Amino acid sequence: MKLRQIQYLFSQYHIGKLFKLERIFTEEDVRNYANLIKDFNPIHLDKYAASQSIFKERVVHGMLSASLFSTLVGTNFPGCIYLEQSINFKAPIFLDEQILAQVLIQDIKHTKGRQILKLNTTIEKMDQKIAVTGQATILIN
Amino acid sequence: MKLRQIQYLFSQYHIGKLFKLERIFTEEDVRNYANLIKDFNPIHLDKYAASQSIFKERVVHGMLSASLFSTLVGTNFPGCIYLEQSINFKAPIFLDEQILAQVLIQDIKHTKGRQILKLNTTIEKMDQKIAVTGQATILIN
Repeated sequence: MKLRQIQYLFSQYHIGKLFKLERIFTEEDVRNYANLIKDFNPIHLDKYAASQSIFKERVVHGMLSASLFSTLVGTNFPGCIYLEQSINFKAPIFLDEQILAQVLIQDIKHTKGRQILKLNTTIEKMDQKIAVTGQATILIN
Repeated sequence: MKLRQIQYLFSQYHIGKLFKLERIFTEEDVRNYANLIKDFNPIHLDKYAASQSIFKERVVHGMLSASLFSTLVGTNFPGCIYLEQSINFKAPIFLDEQILAQVLIQDIKHTKGRQILKLNTTIEKMDQKIAVTGQATILIN
């Protein structure tokens, strides 16, 4: 990697930089995801079954909401390689609920012309309750 | 939870039990996922851009392949609550490549009529190379 590119990336990415994305997952989104990954768990798709569950209403697939971390990484660090993602599901996200996904640069290591970034990843609900937390590691060549 | 239900679950789930799922992600699947989560990183969608990348061809979004863990959990442990998932992306998965996702029960803890299961989660390529590893924690009420 050329020095100019490294300097550009270094100025673009710094510890403490925050990337945000608001999203609502609709019934159509949840149905599309269920069809795509073949997970038809009624807690996501069936109003009555969900009403009998601990959450009382339909919830978005956890891995669909966590996919927003991939979106934030893919769009803000183009060309990076996604190495790790940990996910803690803290609270359910309901259909049609507005959520805010955030990725915060927590650490940057420079090694052999590459950067390894540690990212804090969270999804917050509108009542500021944290629904999902986790950490990601990405490599920028 | 009633005793009969606990006994049923206990006989159904035991340490060492393995759940498997084979899958191929096609161009249409990758495009649907990109549209769903709004991650249009060219490494997934653009043949030419991908040919210039480290992987040389288009790769499936990491979080789409990891979604198979959610499928295996959702279909084999209906009604469970997904607590945690860690994911290590070890090798790229290419479009139209056959993969095998596996979930292995590693540990079962019984507490207050509930079970907490630790699962080993992997995705293997047809050359037996491990593409994705990780661990999941689920709660069965």
